[in-house]
Amino acid sequence: MANLRLPGPTPVPPDVYKAMSKEMIDHRGVEFAEMLRRTTANLKRAFQTENDLYVLTSSGTGAMEAAVVNTLSPGERVLGVTIGNFGDRFLKIASAYGASVNELKFPDGDVAIPEQIRQALKDDPDVTTVLVTHNETSTGITNDLETIAGIVKGEFDKMILVDAISSMGSIKLPVDEWGLDVVVAGSQKGWMCPPGLAMISFSERAWKAAETSKMPKFYFSLAEAEKSLKMGQTPWTPAISLLFGLDYAVQQMLARGDMQAVYDFHQEIAQYTRDGLKAMGIGLVAKDERFASNTVTAAWVPEGITDEALLAMLRDEYDIIAAEGRGLLTGRVFRIGHMGYVNQEDIDDVFGALKDALPKLGRQASAVGQA
Amino acid sequence: MANLRLPGPTPVPPDVYKAMSKEMIDHRGVEFAEMLRRTTANLKRAFQTENDLYVLTSSGTGAMEAAVVNTLSPGERVLGVTIGNFGDRFLKIASAYGASVNELKFPDGDVAIPEQIRQALKDDPDVTTVLVTHNETSTGITNDLETIAGIVKGEFDKMILVDAISSMGSIKLPVDEWGLDVVVAGSQKGWMCPPGLAMISFSERAWKAAETSKMPKFYFSLAEAEKSLKMGQTPWTPAISLLFGLDYAVQQMLARGDMQAVYDFHQEIAQYTRDGLKAMGIGLVAKDERFASNTVTAAWVPEGITDEALLAMLRDEYDIIAAEGRGLLTGRVFRIGHMGYVNQEDIDDVFGALKDALPKLGRQASAVGQA
Repeated sequence: MANLRLPGPTPVPPDVYKAMSKEMIDHRGVEFAEMLRRTTANLKRAFQTENDLYVLTSSGTGAMEAAVVNTLSPGERVLGVTIGNFGDRFLKIASAYGASVNELKFPDGDVAIPEQIRQALKDDPDVTTVLVTHNETSTGITNDLETIAGIVKGEFDKMILVDAISSMGSIKLPVDEWGLDVVVAGSQKGWMCPPGLAMISFSERAWKAAETSKMPKFYFSLAEAEKSLKMGQTPWTPAISLLFGLDYAVQQMLARGDMQAVYDFHQEIAQYTRDGLKAMGIGLVAKDERFASNTVTAAWVPEGITDEALLAMLRDEYDIIAAEGRGLLTGRVFRIGHMGYVNQEDIDDVFGALKDALPKLGRQASAVGQA
Repeated sequence: MANLRLPGPTPVPPDVYKAMSKEMIDHRGVEFAEMLRRTTANLKRAFQTENDLYVLTSSGTGAMEAAVVNTLSPGERVLGVTIGNFGDRFLKIASAYGASVNELKFPDGDVAIPEQIRQALKDDPDVTTVLVTHNETSTGITNDLETIAGIVKGEFDKMILVDAISSMGSIKLPVDEWGLDVVVAGSQKGWMCPPGLAMISFSERAWKAAETSKMPKFYFSLAEAEKSLKMGQTPWTPAISLLFGLDYAVQQMLARGDMQAVYDFHQEIAQYTRDGLKAMGIGLVAKDERFASNTVTAAWVPEGITDEALLAMLRDEYDIIAAEGRGLLTGRVFRIGHMGYVNQEDIDDVFGALKDALPKLGRQASAVGQA
């Protein structure tokens, strides 16, 4: 089996596949309703929220679109905080649907600076809503969302929409405690499921905004999702087999105890990954390690080596699938995912492969092992 | 195993589940690119088209939205031909995105009358585009799309968008021969796969329209899909395991020979279903049997019996999952799906159950067996 070390899709355990292979059922029937209600309730526990929550048949990007089109109107002023590729995507979605986006962009590898968000909100009182990424998959950085939400909600009383696709279910993110209005997640991350399902939590304040939202929507209409969920259904035929898998996987996650056990696991394996890379003299993209992501580590490709050669050798000679850089980091970094169905041996295999591969690719042997 | 006789989702063969359980792969890698290119090429064969074709991670409704938002602009005049619930949905999507819809509605159980479409196009020269359902799942009626397309394209040179979700892959529908600009399909129908993937073919004329289309779009942007497909990718993380299944299933379908073998199979099993029901004195919703669908049969619930009681008894006592009526037919009809992974014994089981159940539900024994 290949060692799939991407920041999504992530490896899927055999018992999740088994759950996915259950006989097809009627999505308007009793059995489906029971499953959807159970999965929704369990996901709310994982999201630590009493807000409404919906499972959508789409990638996480679809849920980001749902967050935007269900709350905003064309011309509405939003503050878009971005620290990389996926932050940029959130803003592009808002722009595509006609929002007036005030872009607050931080350099790749940096974390969003709360003080600058405070200043931007002071300077631009027309802003109604802030769009922000919790965990930026392209740079391996986790924003200090608790502080950011404190400013956005506590100081300015604005609505906050959060892309938590690569953090929710892996990194601490208590939706209600932090007062997050809309939070989106994706099945192919810490949930140990294949891609194809997205999740979105939606607060009372978001529903208030939905009442006046004028962006067009149909497939991603959460009003339709809510109407159907009352009957234990989804408005359109859902990806039933993926739901079988998610239903099972979330039960397994919650069976570990509370979500803290899941967060601790990811914290430990991430620290192990970072420490191992640093011990090899490989630099992390995260300038301040306190904000390095616990689900994906982005590291600089050692000088004199191309990312393409490194990723190809890892794949072809060691059966390790790591990820390339995205956006501005393309060609300069490689990324190692460590969320969901992963253990220390998987990471050890990556270390072993790197120690073997880097000298072959021309890196000075003496450099390996340097701090 | 239950006898799942819905017009979608349909039963999934064990070997499709096996294909779906293949180890997760990188959706930006070589193996995925090969699979996506192969599946796309095979689907074009099934669609009988040289047009571009994309697989989307969504239900069929998502692809209907893609058809609309990639070709039209707010205020644009469209003729919406509907013969039931799903035709209505197509129009609602167009309206939600601001199209000016001229609704041409035929009564449930009727087929669309080509002459009335001709007249509507004469009367409303501002219409640029016609929306039409090929096979109306809610009433079990197949429109005479060849004649309709001949009028729309041949006589009036308008664009035509087709919902073929419950027909493509089961009922004859040669996209290029009939000149259809945009055609959408769904994985959970004749394709023998679980729900969660949709397909859309897109003609040169549709691309021309896309250039000026002003409806907002992001997740369903086909320009993005095209850009990614050039690299053997999808713009957003796709439902990889469902694609494994579809890739396998379409290869199996094409291995039967040409698509005609698949059409013949569905024609035969549909005729068998209709004949059996009529022999029991159960009336078809299709007023003119020439237009009765080959993928789903809608029949009247015998008088004095409620659809709820009938469907519950079929389910609880005979393990047969049939569907209720939709829209205006709610409560008055039941529907039997016969597409994809189905054989004559499955239908015989339905007949046996009906013969047993109807008298128990109070139907005169003498009526059973009447023509």
